[in-house]
Amino acid sequence: MGDLLGVAVLGAGHMGADHVRRLDRVVSGARVAAVADPDVARAEEAVAGIAGASVHTETEAALDAPGVRAVLIASPGPAHEEALLAALARGLPVLCEKPMVPDSAGALRVVEAEARLGRRLAQIGFMRRYDDGYRRLKALLDEGRLGRPLMLHCVHRNVSSPKDFTSAMLIDSSVSHEIDAARWLLGQELTAVTVLRPRPSAGAPEGLSDPQFVLFETDGGALVDVEVFVNCGFGYQVRCEAVCEAGSARIGDDHGMLVSARGAAAAEVPQDYLVRFVDAYDREVQSWVDATRQGRVTGPTAWDGYAASAVAEAGVRALESGARTAVGLAPRPELYAGN
Amino acid sequence: MGDLLGVAVLGAGHMGADHVRRLDRVVSGARVAAVADPDVARAEEAVAGIAGASVHTETEAALDAPGVRAVLIASPGPAHEEALLAALARGLPVLCEKPMVPDSAGALRVVEAEARLGRRLAQIGFMRRYDDGYRRLKALLDEGRLGRPLMLHCVHRNVSSPKDFTSAMLIDSSVSHEIDAARWLLGQELTAVTVLRPRPSAGAPEGLSDPQFVLFETDGGALVDVEVFVNCGFGYQVRCEAVCEAGSARIGDDHGMLVSARGAAAAEVPQDYLVRFVDAYDREVQSWVDATRQGRVTGPTAWDGYAASAVAEAGVRALESGARTAVGLAPRPELYAGN
Amino acid sequence: MGDLLGVAVLGAGHMGADHVRRLDRVVSGARVAAVADPDVARAEEAVAGIAGASVHTETEAALDAPGVRAVLIASPGPAHEEALLAALARGLPVLCEKPMVPDSAGALRVVEAEARLGRRLAQIGFMRRYDDGYRRLKALLDEGRLGRPLMLHCVHRNVSSPKDFTSAMLIDSSVSHEIDAARWLLGQELTAVTVLRPRPSAGAPEGLSDPQFVLFETDGGALVDVEVFVNCGFGYQVRCEAVCEAGSARIGDDHGMLVSARGAAAAEVPQDYLVRFVDAYDREVQSWVDATRQGRVTGPTAWDGYAASAVAEAGVRALESGARTAVGLAPRPELYAGN
Amino acid sequence: MGDLLGVAVLGAGHMGADHVRRLDRVVSGARVAAVADPDVARAEEAVAGIAGASVHTETEAALDAPGVRAVLIASPGPAHEEALLAALARGLPVLCEKPMVPDSAGALRVVEAEARLGRRLAQIGFMRRYDDGYRRLKALLDEGRLGRPLMLHCVHRNVSSPKDFTSAMLIDSSVSHEIDAARWLLGQELTAVTVLRPRPSAGAPEGLSDPQFVLFETDGGALVDVEVFVNCGFGYQVRCEAVCEAGSARIGDDHGMLVSARGAAAAEVPQDYLVRFVDAYDREVQSWVDATRQGRVTGPTAWDGYAASAVAEAGVRALESGARTAVGLAPRPELYAGN
Repeated sequence: MGDLLGVAVLGAGHMGADHVRRLDRVVSGARVAAVADPDVARAEEAVAGIAGASVHTETEAALDAPGVRAVLIASPGPAHEEALLAALARGLPVLCEKPMVPDSAGALRVVEAEARLGRRLAQIGFMRRYDDGYRRLKALLDEGRLGRPLMLHCVHRNVSSPKDFTSAMLIDSSVSHEIDAARWLLGQELTAVTVLRPRPSAGAPEGLSDPQFVLFETDGGALVDVEVFVNCGFGYQVRCEAVCEAGSARIGDDHGMLVSARGAAAAEVPQDYLVRFVDAYDREVQSWVDATRQGRVTGPTAWDGYAASAVAEAGVRALESGARTAVGLAPRPELYAGN
Repeated sequence: MGDLLGVAVLGAGHMGADHVRRLDRVVSGARVAAVADPDVARAEEAVAGIAGASVHTETEAALDAPGVRAVLIASPGPAHEEALLAALARGLPVLCEKPMVPDSAGALRVVEAEARLGRRLAQIGFMRRYDDGYRRLKALLDEGRLGRPLMLHCVHRNVSSPKDFTSAMLIDSSVSHEIDAARWLLGQELTAVTVLRPRPSAGAPEGLSDPQFVLFETDGGALVDVEVFVNCGFGYQVRCEAVCEAGSARIGDDHGMLVSARGAAAAEVPQDYLVRFVDAYDREVQSWVDATRQGRVTGPTAWDGYAASAVAEAGVRALESGARTAVGLAPRPELYAGN
Repeated sequence: MGDLLGVAVLGAGHMGADHVRRLDRVVSGARVAAVADPDVARAEEAVAGIAGASVHTETEAALDAPGVRAVLIASPGPAHEEALLAALARGLPVLCEKPMVPDSAGALRVVEAEARLGRRLAQIGFMRRYDDGYRRLKALLDEGRLGRPLMLHCVHRNVSSPKDFTSAMLIDSSVSHEIDAARWLLGQELTAVTVLRPRPSAGAPEGLSDPQFVLFETDGGALVDVEVFVNCGFGYQVRCEAVCEAGSARIGDDHGMLVSARGAAAAEVPQDYLVRFVDAYDREVQSWVDATRQGRVTGPTAWDGYAASAVAEAGVRALESGARTAVGLAPRPELYAGN
Repeated sequence: MGDLLGVAVLGAGHMGADHVRRLDRVVSGARVAAVADPDVARAEEAVAGIAGASVHTETEAALDAPGVRAVLIASPGPAHEEALLAALARGLPVLCEKPMVPDSAGALRVVEAEARLGRRLAQIGFMRRYDDGYRRLKALLDEGRLGRPLMLHCVHRNVSSPKDFTSAMLIDSSVSHEIDAARWLLGQELTAVTVLRPRPSAGAPEGLSDPQFVLFETDGGALVDVEVFVNCGFGYQVRCEAVCEAGSARIGDDHGMLVSARGAAAAEVPQDYLVRFVDAYDREVQSWVDATRQGRVTGPTAWDGYAASAVAEAGVRALESGARTAVGLAPRPELYAGN
């Protein structure tokens, strides 16, 4: 069918290759039209067996390749700003993996470029908004029968951190998910952040401040606390409890199967975020493809990407200073009102 | 892309229309090429907005329509035999909703036709095999670390039964899912069945024997019990516990969110099988499309469809007689060895 | 205080010694006045350090010892009938461990003796009626908001069976707990029983039919199924789900602590019934002491003890015959009306 | 029996009357010898029907009454210091309800008096140490297989607060339980406290800062966070999750019965601490009676009572200042080494 959405995928690393596979074999209505990666062999490997997908080393060449009608950015964070601006300049709808732009100044330039354009083209890859649990929690909070949310208690645990993971990355890479999730669930901006550091776990690499306990205040008077523990050793656990005026709701404790053996009744804990959130990734990309084919943008905005970067930057400063740190946000352009 | 799998969908009722939507908007690699339904208006409504899909009132016309390379049968059960034989005669791969053929004699004719053909073309729509919980349970049993399965305890509850639901339909419509699931999980044939009838619930329509308690014996010495209760009033619950020599495993008790309010900590119970098994349906059809495009058949076979019909027939006789009833199966054709 | 209830404990084995400890150190308002056991050394060991407790080898001597105002029978089952009749003859209130009398003919003689006496003196040790979970389930069923109970699904698993445990003992020793619990929860008599035997677990001793699946019908049209598996290997699990017209309720799945470690979130499964039911035993004896001091009998009656024996006997016949077996009960004496 | 422990109960209010009942009818080995309350009618009502219990309006008269060998203090907090000093002066073992002494200066005077005495006589009523869940968590942490504890996440919710409950009382009355539990579970002292105040719930009385989020640091480098919410509206919930280097353990999420009805699978949430902790109270008093009869003191010490008061005072200052507040503790007397 001629109307499959031709997508240029930027970046053919772990995440990029996974998105190529998803567009080719999981998602309905799209096809991979081009892939760009400085490592051309990696790009070719990603598209092996996919008819009609051209391979490029340069971003611009991929965006200009025949059949490209939308862009999925899965390159490393530092390359995002240039890629986003190039996509916006061509009027191409874009799904950009998080972080949108690692530094808030660069993120703000993207916001401003899109605001100048006067219409939304960018969606940011905060895929938790597409997770079934988070969506149910969001729906419950919006419905209002539990009253106003007062606190969110969040847990974010990984089995172990990648090599070269820094103490700041617990905030700007890991907790950035909770930053977006909290803003979205509450519909409020985060205004201040405090980071507490218990004595590091013996299981953490030397010098890494792991775990950390991060506290956010919001402009609606709510409190968000996040335990982030990237070397917990036993599994990938993401939980969120919303405490409201008339009740609380918790997600992330379910299990697919309960096994009684050897003196215990046990539920498996996934070891990897791809296991936990595979459906969310699929739903996110399907939702983006569906909306894009209809000329709409429905997901997290560039403003959400900017706000996440600005809050994370304040969080890293709070980590370093040990003090409560205010978050400064630029004025929100009219384009993002209500989002 | 020219290589999207063109599918003829037979039947445009509730289930057929849902499959049309799934093929068009959810599943990757397929397109709706034709739809057939005696009610032409219904067929046209199902394909509204789908380019390239022809509409027919006759099965054969749909199978012969341009671009049709595979068939999805979602018409009423009594129409399945003819449709399956027509698809087999044309060498078309086919996904047939359950029951494959309601009566075992007819089901056996389909088995024999495919056996004569000498290659497998038909997959039967036992979608529980594609549910994440069932797949995990199957993987655990196959892995063997809990030892041999001794018993399966199953629960199958619906909020309320459709109008005109009969006592026999608790067996041949509802429990037929457990019949297939048990055969698949255990890798054993069911050899006898007993049906017990507690005094019917006040919530069941007059004259309907609801709930029922169904006991199956297997050729591997295992026992399968099923509570089927189609007017339980409160939700759609499907559970299965496998009791093995060294442990037990249970699926169907998980929840997406736990809400504490008004004196209780509660998980929502879905009201509908489409909510509970939507992912299983999507995965089933995606898996069928993927395999079909590669010229393979990987799902439940016509033999599975026949066996389910034969066991269900014995179950209905057991319901009527109140006695333990042996299941008689025809010899298994070579084509289905190991399946 | 002079008014502590002086109790003669018959039997100083595992269970008897535990009751001596309980009366002396856990329960309020009672004291051990006498202990009888054919093995005098065992009796003396049981009362070591307890002032005022005399030691005997003969039942009658213990019942007649100074200060004895009530009797707790914890001797082997075959000795119960004689002990009960002796206690009744003296007008002594008695708490008798289950089985009241192993054979229903003997049990009926006790019932008749008490009926002739014209007042209740005997309470039978069905301690599940004192377990918090069972009490909550009973209260819920009695309250009626779930409607009439239609089915009870029961599970009774032990880590391993004692030496010399026979296939019949799965019924008359293990399932006898479920027999009483079902009668009590439903307020109905059990009228027929069928026993199914899956191929025995490799973990069961040679020749033992373990697990078994036992089905009871009731005079109220309900169905009770019991999985009994006394060599399940992994823990002591007792569960009960009551399926009613407007909902279901399940006990026995709770846990004191959930531990996430090594890839699983696990709740400990107790290894022993004393761990699972310690509070029930304490509550049972406290309740008996309290009622006895007030001249009342409030717990399970001799009729309950007789009915349990009669149903278990039918169950053992059903196990041997493989057929559905009716339960025959003697007429219920007026003394037990409403109990 | 002459050797029942005669106890003087000080205070015949809600808690005192409950302890009188417990000593008389639940606990083994003790009897109520005297009750004192300024309201003599209330004291007389509490002991109605209890033989041998004298009634007093003055503490000293009760302590000196015939048969008194131990003291249980359940009077209002401000009366505790005088009562404790009087008991110590007489060499009487004492179980004192929390708070031991509301102000840390007074608490320190009790510590010093006992230290001068050179032997421990006082046990403080931190009954959570006797709750089954807390004991299992403590045992798990002490066992060490999860490694060093890094964080405790605590939740303490009440349906509604008593009249005249103040913002400070969320700390020094409610959170004081978590203060002791954290010290005991970790075996560490709390060194600093920060209190965060989300915008109060609409369900809280005007002017009450409810909920609050309290953060404690420990001398072992651990972090303890407590959500305290005394007008949560829906139930009494006490949870604690210990996050350790190699796993986490959570208590307080269990349930006695799961009821599926009306679209939800729900566990009841208790409405009252007496329901949740009734067994802990019974076990606490039984344990105190047992130890006292053997001339030993085994429970929380006067030092624990003092430390809880000192930490709570720092917490109230932190609540008022909004700043992180250090906890100052007096040197620990030799008598309490290792406790």
